[in-house]
Amino acid sequence: MSVATTGPVRVVGTGLLGASLGLALTRHGVDVQLEDPSRTALALARDVGAGRPVDAAAPAPALVVVAAPPDVTADVVAAALAAHPDAVVTDVASVKGHVLDELRASGADLARYVGSHPMAGRERSGPSAAVPDLFLGRPWVITSSGESHDDALLTVRHLAVDVGAVPVVMDAAAHDAAVAVVSHVPQLASSLVAARLRGADDDALALAGQGLRDVTRLAASDPALWTSILAANAAAVRDVLVSLRADLDLVVEALDQAADATGPEDVGLGALATIARAIADGGAGAARIPGKHGGSGKQYAVVTVLVPDRPGELARLLGDVGEAGVNLEDLRIEHAAGRPVGMASIAVLPARAGHLESELTARGWRLVR
Amino acid sequence: MSVATTGPVRVVGTGLLGASLGLALTRHGVDVQLEDPSRTALALARDVGAGRPVDAAAPAPALVVVAAPPDVTADVVAAALAAHPDAVVTDVASVKGHVLDELRASGADLARYVGSHPMAGRERSGPSAAVPDLFLGRPWVITSSGESHDDALLTVRHLAVDVGAVPVVMDAAAHDAAVAVVSHVPQLASSLVAARLRGADDDALALAGQGLRDVTRLAASDPALWTSILAANAAAVRDVLVSLRADLDLVVEALDQAADATGPEDVGLGALATIARAIADGGAGAARIPGKHGGSGKQYAVVTVLVPDRPGELARLLGDVGEAGVNLEDLRIEHAAGRPVGMASIAVLPARAGHLESELTARGWRLVR
Repeated sequence: MSVATTGPVRVVGTGLLGASLGLALTRHGVDVQLEDPSRTALALARDVGAGRPVDAAAPAPALVVVAAPPDVTADVVAAALAAHPDAVVTDVASVKGHVLDELRASGADLARYVGSHPMAGRERSGPSAAVPDLFLGRPWVITSSGESHDDALLTVRHLAVDVGAVPVVMDAAAHDAAVAVVSHVPQLASSLVAARLRGADDDALALAGQGLRDVTRLAASDPALWTSILAANAAAVRDVLVSLRADLDLVVEALDQAADATGPEDVGLGALATIARAIADGGAGAARIPGKHGGSGKQYAVVTVLVPDRPGELARLLGDVGEAGVNLEDLRIEHAAGRPVGMASIAVLPARAGHLESELTARGWRLVR
Repeated sequence: MSVATTGPVRVVGTGLLGASLGLALTRHGVDVQLEDPSRTALALARDVGAGRPVDAAAPAPALVVVAAPPDVTADVVAAALAAHPDAVVTDVASVKGHVLDELRASGADLARYVGSHPMAGRERSGPSAAVPDLFLGRPWVITSSGESHDDALLTVRHLAVDVGAVPVVMDAAAHDAAVAVVSHVPQLASSLVAARLRGADDDALALAGQGLRDVTRLAASDPALWTSILAANAAAVRDVLVSLRADLDLVVEALDQAADATGPEDVGLGALATIARAIADGGAGAARIPGKHGGSGKQYAVVTVLVPDRPGELARLLGDVGEAGVNLEDLRIEHAAGRPVGMASIAVLPARAGHLESELTARGWRLVR
């Protein structure tokens, strides 16, 4: 595949994002120069094929990508703008307004700078976790300061497309408000809910179901990285949290009233309505999350099948789904506590559900229906 | 399979739980009598095979299972105790202290009453969603009032085991505190986070990733049912929310300080530490959630594979996993926004990951690594 990015591209910071970007560009034949204050990270990135460590003989880069932690990004971008007067400079930090403000304050040449944020990540970090496909199909936010030159914007857009991402243009403030609501506040809420489990009895934890696991999955994240992200986006995150807390206050007050009441008819009508509204508002918000392929949330029919927990059983099931000629749109697996059996919930187009159910039954599967 | 429950069992309330219980018992040859104030729900439950509607000729039940909404459960239990002086009576309401308090206040015969709560559910409700396997492997909490006769406790334990559940004995207060922390507060937190999305721009929602989907999955729940559950467990839920809010207050205050600062070194040390502690405490809590099969959270290796979004591709992948002789421990699928490709993350025992990777590569799969 021929790419629009010509290079040389200098990647400053060879963690997961930087090294993955280097890998993706190297595969397309782009000359990638690597820089990192950690000699270990640099050597690892070279070893996974992300590019070659920069040396005195390296030609001047056409594009510098700063993939440093959010709290040092602005300094590294400013240094790159000064060191490479002909290069376009971008960064991939997950908070954008903060970086732009610092650059503006430092008097940097904003015509050659374009902020960006690829919405990509993995549970592992560092160059050894780098994968060239990290950006495939993910949104890559490009934030123009208003002062960026058109060719600088185009250079960064090419970079995003060349590594398989989908460019999305937003200004820095809109980006930061967006990630506060779709990423930073969900992360904090997950952590705050999970923190309640520290003091719970083992007996209580044994009652945990899939819902708790879903809500707390994000809570396993790295505290140092998230402190840096949240501090850099403090105002936007705080605004969302304050609005969340206002609803929480209403719910706590309503529960106070309900706790004192002897029965539902004794609870002030407003209190029950407050609780119902909190749940209903959540449903209305959740319904706005786009579904697969960026379309609006599509409705699928779900066929649920009991799967013995033995090697190859799930594979056999999905083989049978394939032989039935039905396209599996999504799949969720729940294991039953203390039982060697799981339930596989297969989402399919509603028109195909009946056919799939009879095909699976004919093949001896036990359906949950 | 022979069962200990002899019957007749009268199921009062033929929603999802009552009808599923009737189905499971009927399959074991137990005589199930059905009662419901809704003639439609009753007829539907009969039609799915959950039992037969009770009539004047029905023999006296040995066990009455009240599967009514939480706010009417105590009244229905009291009526059943009075109407069937030789029967054991249980209920399946998701809040227990509240029911017991009302029964005690009404002077009911607590020797024959045993509260219980099967931790089972589906995304759909009503008798048409009933499945006999609903309880398979799920915890079934049995709450003794301290006044329950041993044979009444044994009768309910038999019921739980006969439908495939795992009995767990707790007192009502411990149960209610447990479900507040593992179920009710996660539900509310999910709703409160999802409610923030109502006012978000479409552009912001387009940046949503798997993390947001996980945190907000519960938010699609039924407001009326949840209002009833939360009001019935108001004091316990409130206590957990108040503790959550105290942490939230600290985080908001820390973000306030960070928002006013010009850089990390300018933020009071305590503020950054507060944010880091909130994330770290969440990680510590999440780590306490038991893993699959009720064991402590096991570590698996994850092999991630790119899967074209065409019928049968995922099936073919899992067929190849099966042929490689590797047991799939868990599977997560993420679809790439705007791209006809997905990533399947296959969890396997760490010792099998290398073998699986080489087998899949040999079969032409593209691994993300």
